[in-house]
Amino acid sequence: MSNDPTPRLSDLIAASDAASDRRTFLTRASALSLAIPGMAALSACDRPDAAQSSAAPPTKSPPTQYPDNSNSRLDSTVVREEHHANTSVAGVANDASAVTYHRYAPELPPPPANGRLVLHWHAREVPVRITDDVVVSAWTFEGDVPGPILHCRVGDTIEFTLTNDVVIPHSIDFHGAQIDPKVAFRSVPKGESVTFTFTPKYAGAFMYHCGTAPVLMHIGAGMYGALIVSPREGLPPAKEFVLVQGEYYLSAGNGGVQVSDYQKMLSTLPDHVCFNGRPGQYMKEPIRVKVGDRVRFWVVAAGPSHPCHFHVVGEQFDSVWLGAPPANPIRGVQTFTVPAGGGLVFDLICDIPGEFPFVNHAFGHGQKGAVGILHVE
Amino acid sequence: MSNDPTPRLSDLIAASDAASDRRTFLTRASALSLAIPGMAALSACDRPDAAQSSAAPPTKSPPTQYPDNSNSRLDSTVVREEHHANTSVAGVANDASAVTYHRYAPELPPPPANGRLVLHWHAREVPVRITDDVVVSAWTFEGDVPGPILHCRVGDTIEFTLTNDVVIPHSIDFHGAQIDPKVAFRSVPKGESVTFTFTPKYAGAFMYHCGTAPVLMHIGAGMYGALIVSPREGLPPAKEFVLVQGEYYLSAGNGGVQVSDYQKMLSTLPDHVCFNGRPGQYMKEPIRVKVGDRVRFWVVAAGPSHPCHFHVVGEQFDSVWLGAPPANPIRGVQTFTVPAGGGLVFDLICDIPGEFPFVNHAFGHGQKGAVGILHVE
Amino acid sequence: MSNDPTPRLSDLIAASDAASDRRTFLTRASALSLAIPGMAALSACDRPDAAQSSAAPPTKSPPTQYPDNSNSRLDSTVVREEHHANTSVAGVANDASAVTYHRYAPELPPPPANGRLVLHWHAREVPVRITDDVVVSAWTFEGDVPGPILHCRVGDTIEFTLTNDVVIPHSIDFHGAQIDPKVAFRSVPKGESVTFTFTPKYAGAFMYHCGTAPVLMHIGAGMYGALIVSPREGLPPAKEFVLVQGEYYLSAGNGGVQVSDYQKMLSTLPDHVCFNGRPGQYMKEPIRVKVGDRVRFWVVAAGPSHPCHFHVVGEQFDSVWLGAPPANPIRGVQTFTVPAGGGLVFDLICDIPGEFPFVNHAFGHGQKGAVGILHVE
Repeated sequence: MSNDPTPRLSDLIAASDAASDRRTFLTRASALSLAIPGMAALSACDRPDAAQSSAAPPTKSPPTQYPDNSNSRLDSTVVREEHHANTSVAGVANDASAVTYHRYAPELPPPPANGRLVLHWHAREVPVRITDDVVVSAWTFEGDVPGPILHCRVGDTIEFTLTNDVVIPHSIDFHGAQIDPKVAFRSVPKGESVTFTFTPKYAGAFMYHCGTAPVLMHIGAGMYGALIVSPREGLPPAKEFVLVQGEYYLSAGNGGVQVSDYQKMLSTLPDHVCFNGRPGQYMKEPIRVKVGDRVRFWVVAAGPSHPCHFHVVGEQFDSVWLGAPPANPIRGVQTFTVPAGGGLVFDLICDIPGEFPFVNHAFGHGQKGAVGILHVE
Repeated sequence: MSNDPTPRLSDLIAASDAASDRRTFLTRASALSLAIPGMAALSACDRPDAAQSSAAPPTKSPPTQYPDNSNSRLDSTVVREEHHANTSVAGVANDASAVTYHRYAPELPPPPANGRLVLHWHAREVPVRITDDVVVSAWTFEGDVPGPILHCRVGDTIEFTLTNDVVIPHSIDFHGAQIDPKVAFRSVPKGESVTFTFTPKYAGAFMYHCGTAPVLMHIGAGMYGALIVSPREGLPPAKEFVLVQGEYYLSAGNGGVQVSDYQKMLSTLPDHVCFNGRPGQYMKEPIRVKVGDRVRFWVVAAGPSHPCHFHVVGEQFDSVWLGAPPANPIRGVQTFTVPAGGGLVFDLICDIPGEFPFVNHAFGHGQKGAVGILHVE
Repeated sequence: MSNDPTPRLSDLIAASDAASDRRTFLTRASALSLAIPGMAALSACDRPDAAQSSAAPPTKSPPTQYPDNSNSRLDSTVVREEHHANTSVAGVANDASAVTYHRYAPELPPPPANGRLVLHWHAREVPVRITDDVVVSAWTFEGDVPGPILHCRVGDTIEFTLTNDVVIPHSIDFHGAQIDPKVAFRSVPKGESVTFTFTPKYAGAFMYHCGTAPVLMHIGAGMYGALIVSPREGLPPAKEFVLVQGEYYLSAGNGGVQVSDYQKMLSTLPDHVCFNGRPGQYMKEPIRVKVGDRVRFWVVAAGPSHPCHFHVVGEQFDSVWLGAPPANPIRGVQTFTVPAGGGLVFDLICDIPGEFPFVNHAFGHGQKGAVGILHVE
């Protein structure tokens, strides 16, 4: 292995640290055949370079080049070599045919009755079937893309623990939290955990995501989801759904499982764009409501790169909240842009029956899977 | 013809149906030399594959892959082979030099006096000269890009009939209508029609477009336009203009006529970006108003893929309506983003004379033709 | 020199004039090895083509093709050949190692006490070190990228003179001015000046930039900045900072100095995206405030092509003003999109200490350097 001229992911991790710069990172990433392979590809390798990186003491001095991690300057130093052999995950990821498809349930769960969410999640790499043809070796929170939908109310308390099950360091950044990112959103090595508590101050559709460097890769590989915070004063009763737009940038992997491709992410031209992790899943199995329902879409554009120009064919939005609901809605809207890394809330009144497609109306992206059907019966 | 290994557009249409998936679609599209040729290129061909597709009964069962059509799951099944020989259109399209240029009039027409618009439009393929050098074999509503500007008031009635004159199935999706898309916005085969009636509920600058699969191609090939709905309570008197931003993605065709290129559309990097179908047309022949006028731009970003960062050089907007006017304007704005597939309303007060360019200030796109001049005399 | 088949920048300038069209422009640009070299590369050349262009009388008749300059139809005619030998600039630009790095101070300066800003700026080409590794031959206002931060109040008077020190014609377009662009924002040849006076009507974070054709190149090469206009009625007291997002599109130049690449600009895929001209500069040297401070970011997205999906990790915005402050804020916002060529105002309350990264959350772009740290002590 020591004679292998091909750089490994560990080199990339080392490269993003203080010892190196972005150019070196990209040069090495390029030599990796443009793809950032999943854990499976790494599990049989020695990783002397990363071990050296790990041996270096964490430093608070700023890097001489801008770092790839926007959330923590220490993230790349936490790889621990003793944990890297994860053959069980590798085994699963190497046989795409064994991976079954499931629809991602878009319904907003109820908020906690006692005003308290106590959560212990794991960062894991798992193969996820996103269409009949495509299985992705995804980096996940709790084994799915997106991670679980969370729901609470303004002023509730969230006690959160993240344990990292894999060699690549991971972290979690909640857009709904007011908290020191350097502490709460820090990266953790395999087998270790980070715990923090926060109280959402504003209502809204908030993104969460892994903030470990390079953030582009960690979001692009699947580590994102939505925390919905309802206002205490309430909103009009509605059938409530959560749609998280994400993007996939893929290259061929082993055993029919595709892997995320960092160079493609840098090109900003995704292979798939979708709601809740699966291209066109709600075309296959629509979201169903009744005539007379008010429907509320909490829409997050997780990116990593593209906003969502959200539109429902055959309908207009009664209200769109650009800030924290229930204040300041705009009314009577055909399409509005959800910022990349942001979230907006869309209400529509289902006066008539029909099959109403909801789409990202930037069709160069929408055509790649960001379409679904709202079936009003 | 049966020995010809080159796939035809009919294959693409079949491929987008339940029998196939997106990968197959793109593979075939790629083999078509990356271009979706216009009708002209098809008119002399046998189309046994499409005939087979047509012979298959329309099915309501969802496709196993996400479909390319966000608006109707049945669109691709309606091709009727008996209509495909359209040599008259082909003849025109094959001689670019015979196609004359005309400026697209941006003035907002008056709303109907009797509260009723009765319209019978045709979907047609025609060559459109968009600059001195470029003629495009466009897919159109009523023979131009964009289609006609429509204007009514909230609560008016629109009785609309679309007849399809061409082999490719087409449809029309009005963002200003609250109606079941599966019925009203369904695709129609050559020689047939769809009729529906609707009553706009909200004021605004609403896009209309062909919603037939793949929507990206039908918008990108020219089938879009604006329905302006004025509020019943009125807005301040103004000189009112309609600007529809569109994009062209072109490849060489026959006789100097360029054709729309679906692979380029998927790349989201257009060749031309423009207002009302012609790059820079209002640089050549500005929009003219007088000092003291209030000018109202109803701006639609038809895409297919890009929003419009609308700005007027040397001026600021008195008001921009993000939702239905006259409610909730924002005031004192230099630039605001019109969502792809959306529309906003911009008012400015012409206090001083001058030549004020209006632009898409995302200049990587604006530089490709989304510029014009407002001449205040 | 007359036998040299390689086109020069002067050809491009001529090409963008009435004599030619966009296709020719791009063909010639392409033959220039895809890069628009800085002044240095031109200073030793004869420029017969440009001289011919210069010899042609300025004409008010519109070009037959849409021009590349959205701001003035006369810009390309003002090159004066007698000024082109600028060897002193060339000498500096040819030795990257001699160019030192400096942090761009983001603090908002105070407005003028007497309600009057009298400014005389120069358009210059200078080498700017943007990272430890990268020196760019930048087109600038006053020798830096961005140009100086300006601050005044609504109703103040700005008396502005721009003198052009270089062969390429330049101009300045203030988004905060209501003025005839054809006169005030006209291009000036080397050694000449333009003077105008204006009074900002609205509060906001206004972009300024060179408006000379092609605008895409002049913004992309560094000629942009921010004019901050505070409302007379005031805003809540705050620590105020200005962040101008810009993009770099670079190719190798002489002596280790990189030059701006117009073809890359047309691809809309930048090499670097950053705040205030230097990728990641506020990661290296954070912006520092105290617990209890209200922080106000006046954010301009200068482009040339991309909006900024502005977000602060670990915080939410108390207020974001979409129009002129203090009217119409939205409240409780995680991320909002600053339009390309626009500006928004973001307030947050620093209740807790920590290191809060601010980012463009469209990470395909943000990862390229649009990240910094707000350190709350």
